[in-house]
Amino acid sequence: MGESYHSKIYIALVHYPVLNKKGDVICSAITNLDLHDIARAARTFGVSAYYVVNPLKDQIDLAEKVVHHWTEGNGGKVNPARRDALSLIRIMSSIEDVIEDIGRETGRPLQLIATSARHETKTIRYSEMQKKMEGENDYLLLFGTAWGLSGEIMNNVHGVLEPVNGKGEYNHLSVRSAVSIILDRLMARSE
Amino acid sequence: MGESYHSKIYIALVHYPVLNKKGDVICSAITNLDLHDIARAARTFGVSAYYVVNPLKDQIDLAEKVVHHWTEGNGGKVNPARRDALSLIRIMSSIEDVIEDIGRETGRPLQLIATSARHETKTIRYSEMQKKMEGENDYLLLFGTAWGLSGEIMNNVHGVLEPVNGKGEYNHLSVRSAVSIILDRLMARSE
Repeated sequence: MGESYHSKIYIALVHYPVLNKKGDVICSAITNLDLHDIARAARTFGVSAYYVVNPLKDQIDLAEKVVHHWTEGNGGKVNPARRDALSLIRIMSSIEDVIEDIGRETGRPLQLIATSARHETKTIRYSEMQKKMEGENDYLLLFGTAWGLSGEIMNNVHGVLEPVNGKGEYNHLSVRSAVSIILDRLMARSE
Repeated sequence: MGESYHSKIYIALVHYPVLNKKGDVICSAITNLDLHDIARAARTFGVSAYYVVNPLKDQIDLAEKVVHHWTEGNGGKVNPARRDALSLIRIMSSIEDVIEDIGRETGRPLQLIATSARHETKTIRYSEMQKKMEGENDYLLLFGTAWGLSGEIMNNVHGVLEPVNGKGEYNHLSVRSAVSIILDRLMARSE
């Protein structure tokens, strides 16, 4: 598995722009467990930063309060493993801000890779993605909340990872499960 | 990957007997999101049933209320995909009851396989487990909440799946992430 990659891998959990059940573009709400579960998976697999994208000020404040409790506050004292995980979180108001933030950090070319529960054009297989991760680019993996990333985002990414295929046609994983599985497929250490 | 298996795979989320941080045996609380996320992953990967094990009557009642809302009640009408997932849930008061329930259903030999974030004796690699799943046994995968399954359970299983290894030594995945990754490793369809 992806042992030999040297690209930096960033992930973003996108709350805007995403789709609702009817396909309208909406802004979804940040949930506490998305912060924790995804930060823990990101830390486990060596992700460079976990961006939480939401343009609403009260949502940003709420997320920052949670992160602060676990990084600077009492939570982190009681549970250092949780502090290590949540210190990967960076809260941003747009994907553009995320790209800028990564650019400041790395100065290297960044490619945006979307994820989806549906088959899209520009599909990248996991083995292909691992090969790309041995090259010179860094990667930002975008995960949509609610019913998934908007068409505008889909049109502006370099590629879309193939859906996590289970046994049959059913594919309604939580975004927490999808992130965990995708990071494992791309970044688990082989023994 | 595990396309050719014909064993039935059952999973159990164990709330008793599990360990707390200090290593004492405790009973943990059922959480709503453990029901949803793990049921959705179980349904995606073709698990035969998802057992939730807790001996406390008020906990069983609470879990049954949630499951009923999504299978018989209004939740399932609004979201049939969620109904399909949560209909896999069976709430039991002990692992012994789970084994009996599976025995009534299949009449075939059942092996208990534990999971752990630590390296244990009797470790089974994922490739080995997939080979076992081509044989004549069915399997019950046990997942511990809190700080993991008790020593008594560990001593009484046929084997323990190797920990989900990330990039470094950090291994503090949520049980929701661990279940998702392990089912993906064992049961994803290769394309």
